[in-house]
Amino acid sequence: MIRTNITIGLFGFGVVGQGLHAVLERTPGLRARIGRIAVKDRNKARSLPAELFTFDKQDLLDDPSLDVIVELIDNADEAYIIVKQALLNGKAVVTANKKMLAEHLPELIELQRSTGTPLLYEAAACASLPVIRNLEEYYDTDLLDSVEGIINGSTNYILTAMNRDGQPYADALAKAQRLGFAESNPALDVEGLDARNKLVLLLAHAFGLVTGPEELLAVGIDCLSPLATAYAREQGLAIKLVAEARRLPNGIIAAAVLPTLVAPSHELANVHDEFNGLVTQSGFADRQFFLGRGAGAFPTASAVLSDLSALTYGYRYEYKKIQQNAHLSLAPDAAEVDVLVTFEDEANVPDESDFTVVHEQLRSAQRGNYLIGTIGLGQLARATWLRLPGVCVVRLACPLRAASQAVGARPAIETELVNEISR
Amino acid sequence: MIRTNITIGLFGFGVVGQGLHAVLERTPGLRARIGRIAVKDRNKARSLPAELFTFDKQDLLDDPSLDVIVELIDNADEAYIIVKQALLNGKAVVTANKKMLAEHLPELIELQRSTGTPLLYEAAACASLPVIRNLEEYYDTDLLDSVEGIINGSTNYILTAMNRDGQPYADALAKAQRLGFAESNPALDVEGLDARNKLVLLLAHAFGLVTGPEELLAVGIDCLSPLATAYAREQGLAIKLVAEARRLPNGIIAAAVLPTLVAPSHELANVHDEFNGLVTQSGFADRQFFLGRGAGAFPTASAVLSDLSALTYGYRYEYKKIQQNAHLSLAPDAAEVDVLVTFEDEANVPDESDFTVVHEQLRSAQRGNYLIGTIGLGQLARATWLRLPGVCVVRLACPLRAASQAVGARPAIETELVNEISR
Repeated sequence: MIRTNITIGLFGFGVVGQGLHAVLERTPGLRARIGRIAVKDRNKARSLPAELFTFDKQDLLDDPSLDVIVELIDNADEAYIIVKQALLNGKAVVTANKKMLAEHLPELIELQRSTGTPLLYEAAACASLPVIRNLEEYYDTDLLDSVEGIINGSTNYILTAMNRDGQPYADALAKAQRLGFAESNPALDVEGLDARNKLVLLLAHAFGLVTGPEELLAVGIDCLSPLATAYAREQGLAIKLVAEARRLPNGIIAAAVLPTLVAPSHELANVHDEFNGLVTQSGFADRQFFLGRGAGAFPTASAVLSDLSALTYGYRYEYKKIQQNAHLSLAPDAAEVDVLVTFEDEANVPDESDFTVVHEQLRSAQRGNYLIGTIGLGQLARATWLRLPGVCVVRLACPLRAASQAVGARPAIETELVNEISR
Repeated sequence: MIRTNITIGLFGFGVVGQGLHAVLERTPGLRARIGRIAVKDRNKARSLPAELFTFDKQDLLDDPSLDVIVELIDNADEAYIIVKQALLNGKAVVTANKKMLAEHLPELIELQRSTGTPLLYEAAACASLPVIRNLEEYYDTDLLDSVEGIINGSTNYILTAMNRDGQPYADALAKAQRLGFAESNPALDVEGLDARNKLVLLLAHAFGLVTGPEELLAVGIDCLSPLATAYAREQGLAIKLVAEARRLPNGIIAAAVLPTLVAPSHELANVHDEFNGLVTQSGFADRQFFLGRGAGAFPTASAVLSDLSALTYGYRYEYKKIQQNAHLSLAPDAAEVDVLVTFEDEANVPDESDFTVVHEQLRSAQRGNYLIGTIGLGQLARATWLRLPGVCVVRLACPLRAASQAVGARPAIETELVNEISR
């Protein structure tokens, strides 16, 4: 293999773009330089010579001297237009835009195939952690059972600050934003949507399952109740926002993003601050754990750089598992999960008939209201009460699993029903 | 890239070889099959048809129908002859033999270059953990500062059993051997020599530094004293066998294998049983941690399989950092380390003049004898007292660092000298 020199057309010069520039200046191994930078704001002062910048995307997309487009802008819709046109123009693309990727993955895979032009996006999941490429390459020959991870640095920073440092949610969120860990629209982080976008990418490379983000249940950390937090503390567990994809029997894949109670002995309990962590479970290698910074300019830029390096060796994703695992399908109705639901009053009480089993209930004016039960993953996603204000759902410390009963069967109220409705 | 089918000539049919066979049978993605197996013992009963086996290595090495030689025998000298001849015959090789690799690395790198034939050995370090390829590929563009890890599963199993379960050393070793985690010659494990062989491989792929194992200091766990173990427990620290390679200022690399006190907050404190863990620290990605099974038939076979898969895509190590980091050199005399030395009596007391600083000393018939001091890494390697019976050396919980004083300067005895020589 012969390394080629590459000249980069860079879209966006925010923290990651500037990080990339700084990193390229100090990288001995890579023969890559930034040829031109497209930015939006004409009035912003910039640290580099003005002639390097343009405000017209065609100046980059139509420039034959630029080999690779690096797309680091915030707007997913604009990013999509840029990436698509770059691929059609035969320019390899490196992007960190997980929202854009998750929303257009089938088309972007097909575009790579039809144009023969590579699109790499290691930085789009877990920043510096080499997750995508390891799932694509290293587990190619192993039978992956599950991938579960903390894949949003911002929410993990917030949860760590709340749990370890006792900070209120709003303060922790503000600090995460100040440190540049949060997306510009924090709703993407705290509602679990950023993690869901990344889960779409993990599903494609771990299991060859290409699905849209809207097919996956995501519950965020914006609705965590004091009761749920107190429950976790009492049990000696940490609440983490966990994205999980699991292969169940019969070719079923279950996947979701849920606030999850994590035991101290679980690898993910050791993922603090803005770090990301991923646990893979496979037939031969068994359990593996990857931990690294999941946010920040340099960690993200380092993953972009790694993709640039891979391009110089002619690397591209082959999406091998799409062929290998054609029999796998996402089937939330065939999976179930144990959850703690806390709610404020009768207006937002969860519908018991949605549950396969209700294990425990409490209604108490003093102590608050909660329900612990087993529910189908599809049923939970469809539940109208899930999105009502004052409702908080936290997964108990256990993996997604195949549904034990036929979906729609009447729930059995098994354990003692503590019913202290008072006054 | 077009995947090719491969037919394997397999040397050795022990636990890993049999694991590989089992794993190949159940792998959907890989078009590889075992064509012939060379074994040594003519009398052993085998689970596969007799015609698959041969006792003559030339039957594999000269067979043009075999594309890849997988070498999984125990004897490093025989393995070397096999691997060398295979490469010369134009056959790609996958091996897990770290001893053979560490002893012949410069020649094997040159042979790959001159023959154009690849030699892959992911299974030789950390079994299933994708360590070699990540160091080679992913950190290609990042400035790696250090690699530190628990890279011998057998000793970690023993230390875990001693520390967590309170088992005596001999019992723990016997159990590790029974479970198949230990090398057939356990001295390789417990004297730190297996970890040292792997450190040779990590140095080549992390820093492009090719060195012989004898250039590296290795202290094992076979001499751990009750006093050292008690000291660790009192301090709330765990003793782990840690291999470390660190880039110091001025292009100096310091590397050693040492029993090391590890704080509970350190990632390596969470590596239990036969698991391996590796922490990388780099300029842009910062701190990353990889955890996985470091021993056992299936985890090792899964790494072999991953190499086989990589071969079908034309992958080979390029040893990129050998070019990039030509200015780096191993300089143990420019590095120093803080150690706890325990010793039994006057016959094996460490020479104080070897130390840059002696921080603390105790000589007590009741409590035992120890010295805590700072010592040059080269000086420690040369110390005659290091290998005396009854001497135990444990590194304090701190990284290797550049020497603070000129080597050979008189040691200053800084802190209070507790000198309780009694009776």
